[in-house]
Amino acid sequence: MVGVDYLAGERRTAEFDVAAMKIVWAGSRRAFEISDRISKLVASDPALSKDGRTEMARKELFKNTLRKASYAWKQIIELRLTEEEALMLRFYIDEPAFTDLHWGMFIPAIKGSGTEEQQKKWLTLAYKMQIIGCYAQTELGHGSNVRGLETTATFDPQTDEFVIHSPTLTSSKWWPGGLGKVSTHAIVYARLITEGKDHGVHGFIVQLRSLEDHKPLAGITIGDIGTKFGNGAYNTMDNGVLRFDHVRIPRDQMLMRVSQVTREGKYVKSDIPRQLLYGTMVLVRQSMVRDASYALSRAVCIATRYSAVRRQFGSQNGGQETQVINYKTQQSRLFPLLASTYAFRFVGEWLKWLYTDVTQKLQAGDFSTLPEVHACTAGMKSLTTTATADGIEECRKLCGGHGYLCSSGLPELFAAYVPACTYEGDNTVLLLQVARFLMKSVSRLGSGKLQAVGTIAYMGRIEQLMQCHCNVQQAKDWLKPSTVLEAFEARAVRMSVSCAKNISKFTNPEEGFAELTADLAEAAVAHCQLIVVSKFIEKLQQDIPGKGVKQQLQALCSIYSLFLLHKHQGDFLAVNYLTPKQASLANDQLRALYTQVRPNAVALVDAFNHTDHFLGSVLGCYDGNVYPKLYEAAWKNPLNECDVPDGYHEYIKPLLRQQLLAARL
Amino acid sequence: MVGVDYLAGERRTAEFDVAAMKIVWAGSRRAFEISDRISKLVASDPALSKDGRTEMARKELFKNTLRKASYAWKQIIELRLTEEEALMLRFYIDEPAFTDLHWGMFIPAIKGSGTEEQQKKWLTLAYKMQIIGCYAQTELGHGSNVRGLETTATFDPQTDEFVIHSPTLTSSKWWPGGLGKVSTHAIVYARLITEGKDHGVHGFIVQLRSLEDHKPLAGITIGDIGTKFGNGAYNTMDNGVLRFDHVRIPRDQMLMRVSQVTREGKYVKSDIPRQLLYGTMVLVRQSMVRDASYALSRAVCIATRYSAVRRQFGSQNGGQETQVINYKTQQSRLFPLLASTYAFRFVGEWLKWLYTDVTQKLQAGDFSTLPEVHACTAGMKSLTTTATADGIEECRKLCGGHGYLCSSGLPELFAAYVPACTYEGDNTVLLLQVARFLMKSVSRLGSGKLQAVGTIAYMGRIEQLMQCHCNVQQAKDWLKPSTVLEAFEARAVRMSVSCAKNISKFTNPEEGFAELTADLAEAAVAHCQLIVVSKFIEKLQQDIPGKGVKQQLQALCSIYSLFLLHKHQGDFLAVNYLTPKQASLANDQLRALYTQVRPNAVALVDAFNHTDHFLGSVLGCYDGNVYPKLYEAAWKNPLNECDVPDGYHEYIKPLLRQQLLAARL
Repeated sequence: MVGVDYLAGERRTAEFDVAAMKIVWAGSRRAFEISDRISKLVASDPALSKDGRTEMARKELFKNTLRKASYAWKQIIELRLTEEEALMLRFYIDEPAFTDLHWGMFIPAIKGSGTEEQQKKWLTLAYKMQIIGCYAQTELGHGSNVRGLETTATFDPQTDEFVIHSPTLTSSKWWPGGLGKVSTHAIVYARLITEGKDHGVHGFIVQLRSLEDHKPLAGITIGDIGTKFGNGAYNTMDNGVLRFDHVRIPRDQMLMRVSQVTREGKYVKSDIPRQLLYGTMVLVRQSMVRDASYALSRAVCIATRYSAVRRQFGSQNGGQETQVINYKTQQSRLFPLLASTYAFRFVGEWLKWLYTDVTQKLQAGDFSTLPEVHACTAGMKSLTTTATADGIEECRKLCGGHGYLCSSGLPELFAAYVPACTYEGDNTVLLLQVARFLMKSVSRLGSGKLQAVGTIAYMGRIEQLMQCHCNVQQAKDWLKPSTVLEAFEARAVRMSVSCAKNISKFTNPEEGFAELTADLAEAAVAHCQLIVVSKFIEKLQQDIPGKGVKQQLQALCSIYSLFLLHKHQGDFLAVNYLTPKQASLANDQLRALYTQVRPNAVALVDAFNHTDHFLGSVLGCYDGNVYPKLYEAAWKNPLNECDVPDGYHEYIKPLLRQQLLAARL
Repeated sequence: MVGVDYLAGERRTAEFDVAAMKIVWAGSRRAFEISDRISKLVASDPALSKDGRTEMARKELFKNTLRKASYAWKQIIELRLTEEEALMLRFYIDEPAFTDLHWGMFIPAIKGSGTEEQQKKWLTLAYKMQIIGCYAQTELGHGSNVRGLETTATFDPQTDEFVIHSPTLTSSKWWPGGLGKVSTHAIVYARLITEGKDHGVHGFIVQLRSLEDHKPLAGITIGDIGTKFGNGAYNTMDNGVLRFDHVRIPRDQMLMRVSQVTREGKYVKSDIPRQLLYGTMVLVRQSMVRDASYALSRAVCIATRYSAVRRQFGSQNGGQETQVINYKTQQSRLFPLLASTYAFRFVGEWLKWLYTDVTQKLQAGDFSTLPEVHACTAGMKSLTTTATADGIEECRKLCGGHGYLCSSGLPELFAAYVPACTYEGDNTVLLLQVARFLMKSVSRLGSGKLQAVGTIAYMGRIEQLMQCHCNVQQAKDWLKPSTVLEAFEARAVRMSVSCAKNISKFTNPEEGFAELTADLAEAAVAHCQLIVVSKFIEKLQQDIPGKGVKQQLQALCSIYSLFLLHKHQGDFLAVNYLTPKQASLANDQLRALYTQVRPNAVALVDAFNHTDHFLGSVLGCYDGNVYPKLYEAAWKNPLNECDVPDGYHEYIKPLLRQQLLAARL
């Protein structure tokens, strides 16, 4: 059966140029070429196979990850990969590892918060991996609220050292990836205490393990925090626990770019604006939005291909059953996720631009857009990661029972993805940050002080948006971008204004905010959805080459918007923007769009250009030859090593022979 | 710290009699006493400890389950447990095992479809576990649609035998629990072919393995289908694959209660009505609703207790941070799930009554209520299992980062629960069955032929329900059960009628139904939510003893209803039953109810009477002493057996020493 493409029929019905769409998805021809080359390099290398990952016990799994990480570093050097290519290589190896934290958190933290001298010393070692670092911030009793951290760094002027200490059990560092078993160093966040005063949380470079024998240094207790959700998944990572018993480090290991402690123990702030540090946060969140679109694209690719292969019911006179993808219920759950994938990809690309833009502004000393950029990136992180986690699980359910097998790839994808909803800001906490920004903006609108620019430009048209009514008369009116945009703008602004009004009824606005957080979170979601919809629409105003490519994207953009409109029709109706009839027309149009996308569905997931290795799914394989692959995968399970299972003689045989009471269990 | 109750303060604020609530939850004093006794028996037995389950490799895990299942059987015999107590024992051991299928599917199938003679022969063996059986229905290529099964059972009149055969790869039996490694026998569903004619799918008792050495019999290939989602979870079960190569069984091993094949090969139907078999389906679904309430209750108990322990933000002047459970966002996500738990428990109890009722009717030859009972149980299974799967994951997220650790118990609970959305009828397929029943009912209404009884009694008041408008004027009006009930009835009936109208616009109603399935599923959800709400309200019309118990349940009933009303306000507004103002008042009342429930939250989850063993969660432990338990659990991980991890010398050391290129990886 080698070489037969069971999805060839699906591919023939595509009405657009898949090669051109691949470039749109990747972002540019250059980006496509790099990711295509590196993903195929990884896929074709037996040393980087994912086989058996979900069957391995923790120790074996972890050792295998050390092997791969080490092998990857060797490849990076031997093939002289650029930094971009090296990042891509780690991405396509698709296995969380200590190197993610070393390159993604430890090095950037030193770059961002270290002095030039510190950078020179530590980055030189880190770039060569002569030391391996992690980022030790969260504690057993302290997650989102950095200000609540308990670890102390007390300056001792007698020895010119800081004493790092964990005063309580809850102050144990807890969760940092790479910490448990591998890292030799860490950036440790601790309360700086000097001259008897607590100056709040600062970063310190602390060596954890001997470079000779890898044993923890004196006064340091380190371990792994235990098994995490899922098979394989994040269990390849040594998330760790770390306790300090009065560990001494030299004064110059405090990260001193923004503030210093002098030889005498004086706490001094430098004249470098703290706002400069926000650039990194924008960068991290932008990359999380990108990762969301990729994670969702994998689940959608698997579910779409398998829905085209799988048949169920609808057989006439003993003929073939109907392809599952032809059922409207399947389409109404799957196609909005397909559309979301593209929507998140484009908003991610736009955030990349925003990062460049804000970096330039910060360097020029212009901090005016920071609050808006902060709210926008917080909102995009929250919206896309929540939708992606839910979307992966929905795709798993769309694959029926077989989605529950690890060989489908979906359980591991879900388990490895969900922490994104919690780290780098809990998604609910982030939505409330957005809401706080919105409430401030609304109150400034009232006093005429608001600069309605960027993602809140629509607030500048508040009078019109508070008054207007939807003018849709037929289903196809909903295809007009301006119609959709006005609907989302009106909904967002009216929900914000309504929240602000309700808060103003409280004598204490903070109390009002706290009481109304559930409503505020909904208003924030409305604002965030508007951003995604508007960026998708903006993307389509650009020139997009390739036969039929723009048409497909227009259909997906409409699906994304109208799906949200239907899902949240309560909002649109409650703010009196729509009539029930108009909401119902949107739903009719949505159904028509599903029919339009149907023949293109498989080609639209082909455009992600995922290798079978990256997908890691027997259900999602490119050639659609699902059942032999499922069958084959089953036999690889360790339980199938012999017909009669281990335990038969002790437990099953005495039971069948009714010898149980005599047997010792 | 042994003996300190960190949640004592929370327990003191409770405004109701927890002991009385425990009896309400259990269903009766007798049910409480049995479950209390058996759950404590299991919890106190070291042989039944759950320790290390999520860390075990598959073979070790599976062997451990064989040990426990065998031990449980020994206990059942030694302690002379009744059938009810034995079931309870297996339930509280809380580990999926082959015995679930033996007792829950194999034996009931023989009881339901076997002749008296067959029952006598096979049940005698099965009751003593001298044989172990499973239920082999689904195939690699065939899940929901039983009519699509491919396995054949061809009668050979020459030898008076059936020849069981798997003609294709996709006809391999796939998924049956207990099949892969343990079962000696199976009920195999196969197409009966005799005299050259296909008589559709029937059940056959087939021996799979030798009772001497447990090896598969000639012509039979059996194996495990591989690792499934999650750590521990369903990996304790040997879901299996099974292929037949012309395997012969005697004619009398066809289950012949409803139809027979004679010695000559004639296919004969008995005069026993097939409808009698539906009783079993009602029983199974009723038990799934019960299981949903229990699974959700565990997640809610863990999340509630940990939310009361955990503190985050809001510290004033270095004082303690705020308990997470005091945040409205936390309450608005957690309390509706708490309310759902009670709602599902009560609708489950009502379904138990319905089962008794329908069984009596069936035995009296009255099949008139079957369609309604079928739709109702399908709907309740779909609604409660979907909400429970989503609810468990929501509870995990409500525990922040620590919910991602297996020691929180939530990952395993989720992974072990989610298949309930797929087996015994895919939840979307079931909703469409409900929708089909609703469409039939509406059309009969038009022709005056509908008997509007049971769960569709409200359709008898269609004229009033199509016309009426909500009369709420203040938030507290939403506390009236009649007000809530009318809202849900009006919404349900109007959505059904609207779907029926839209279908009637198609020339072919089947085509209309297929095109509108997404809307139909929403109408079915509206109908199902009405059932749960109305059964909760009915429960509260009964006498419920215990100080403050009824008041708490009234608050939870209102939370359940108003939460749904808010979540689906689009429906209520779109059918013109509510004004936006009234929807907003419902939301105000909901917030007030959260405040009312807050001091009772911990006591309301205590009322589930779960042991720490059953919860299996360091975050949910009764005494709230979370952090030392989390910390302790971490150190049990195999990775912590030594400081320097396996793989250090091969992979990390060469990397740190820059000796990578020379090293062989």
